[in-house]
Amino acid sequence: MAKELWFTEYHSEDAKMCMRIVRELCAMQTEFQNLEIYETATFGKILVLDGYIMLTEKDEFIYHEMITHVPMAVHKEVKSALIIGGGDGGTLRELCRYPEIENIDMVEIDREVVSKSRQYLPKIASAFDDARLNLHYDDGLRFVRHAEDKYDLIIIDSTDPFGPGESLFTREFYGNCYQALRADGILVNQHESPYYEADAAEACLINEKLKLNFPLVRVYQAHLPSYPSGHWLFGFASKRYDPIIDLEAERWNKRGIATRYYNTDLHKGCFQLPNYVKDLLQE
Amino acid sequence: MAKELWFTEYHSEDAKMCMRIVRELCAMQTEFQNLEIYETATFGKILVLDGYIMLTEKDEFIYHEMITHVPMAVHKEVKSALIIGGGDGGTLRELCRYPEIENIDMVEIDREVVSKSRQYLPKIASAFDDARLNLHYDDGLRFVRHAEDKYDLIIIDSTDPFGPGESLFTREFYGNCYQALRADGILVNQHESPYYEADAAEACLINEKLKLNFPLVRVYQAHLPSYPSGHWLFGFASKRYDPIIDLEAERWNKRGIATRYYNTDLHKGCFQLPNYVKDLLQE
Repeated sequence: MAKELWFTEYHSEDAKMCMRIVRELCAMQTEFQNLEIYETATFGKILVLDGYIMLTEKDEFIYHEMITHVPMAVHKEVKSALIIGGGDGGTLRELCRYPEIENIDMVEIDREVVSKSRQYLPKIASAFDDARLNLHYDDGLRFVRHAEDKYDLIIIDSTDPFGPGESLFTREFYGNCYQALRADGILVNQHESPYYEADAAEACLINEKLKLNFPLVRVYQAHLPSYPSGHWLFGFASKRYDPIIDLEAERWNKRGIATRYYNTDLHKGCFQLPNYVKDLLQE
Repeated sequence: MAKELWFTEYHSEDAKMCMRIVRELCAMQTEFQNLEIYETATFGKILVLDGYIMLTEKDEFIYHEMITHVPMAVHKEVKSALIIGGGDGGTLRELCRYPEIENIDMVEIDREVVSKSRQYLPKIASAFDDARLNLHYDDGLRFVRHAEDKYDLIIIDSTDPFGPGESLFTREFYGNCYQALRADGILVNQHESPYYEADAAEACLINEKLKLNFPLVRVYQAHLPSYPSGHWLFGFASKRYDPIIDLEAERWNKRGIATRYYNTDLHKGCFQLPNYVKDLLQE
């Protein structure tokens, strides 16, 4: 008889997504959150924090490519980057594909996320030995308070706006990020989903706070099936660059970075939002 | 105690989506398939055929707008249109918003789908009394065999490529559609999803057959959360028109058709596919 062990995530009170578990690889309470890693048949290994799927091996490339290559194809020359969160290493892996980057600071609050990802998800946590990385186990809000005019790119690869990631969705935090960025700096963050009511409310709040701090804010989307609704948003906030006008497609394509989701045509397409999402974000 | 009645759809053997049912409105075996309509809290009413969700009130606008307005914003002047399937009436509702259309043939194999949609889903089945409609309860494959040089637009709003909709995915059927279209005719169909393995295999087959019959085939995508993976594809096949080059955005926007998903910027964006989807479809 097939094993009937299902991981269940509620997308609303009345909707849930279930994945059959082949086996549990890790389940522990860290100082900050509950951390689980399972092996599934359809999605490969999955990383779960406080009951929410953070990534699956099947589609993590979509999230990590979209949070990284969109800003990298716009900024003229990123030399210094900051990743906030992202303890699984996927965003770091993508960022490390750019030889021009000289320094990557990464601030992850929970060292167990890094440790268990390195142990169980080596294809994702593959760049922690990169010589350009300075890994800080600290609170992102606290870390960024002390930085000024330092980064070309900040990627906020956080959990949801509750639990240990909550401070990464405050107006103060975005203000500090603004200070930490250079004059042509770009901030990108995971921006929740527009579909289920609670997620949409969060997306709306994130957007308002970004707009209070940055002169140029645009939202883009990706098809990310393992996240609630499969319709995920990212925020692009900048002091100077427009993500479409300033896209340098030819320059990016010359790099020869092989990707499975991102391409420079899709880059332009992913900023074209449905009307109901534009209404939600008052674009 | 809250009622614990869940509708479950398997997206693969090891992944399923569940929606809590408030009450059952209709459950019957028709001549062709099993038909169920439920009321849910999160998605409003849902229509289920042979166990698969055909639509939910929450997001049917996404599917119906995208299958209708994309070709309508490209074709110079649609006077005669054919809908194959679409018994719920959503595609018909969108098509009826264009006053220049003079004739709409609709071929639905199962009269119970129309009847129950009119009874339980009146917001979707709202245009069956339109004077331009000629409704035929017949097999789509058989119907289209007898048509030649007759339609400006054919929309294939079918169920999945098995069960009663199976013949609507054959090479013969697409060949007949080609014959039934005028010299600048457009065919649009639901094209399955690229994500789960079985759906992706079907998407691939549909695409191959379209390309065998039409000189110009392009695929576009929408975020449709109640369908498996939330990443849904549509096929655009034409004898002449390119869906992006021939888009007349200004003309479409002047019509003043209010939409909740579709807009002419998104029109251009939705054809920009992720690399893994382009590889699947050999684009």
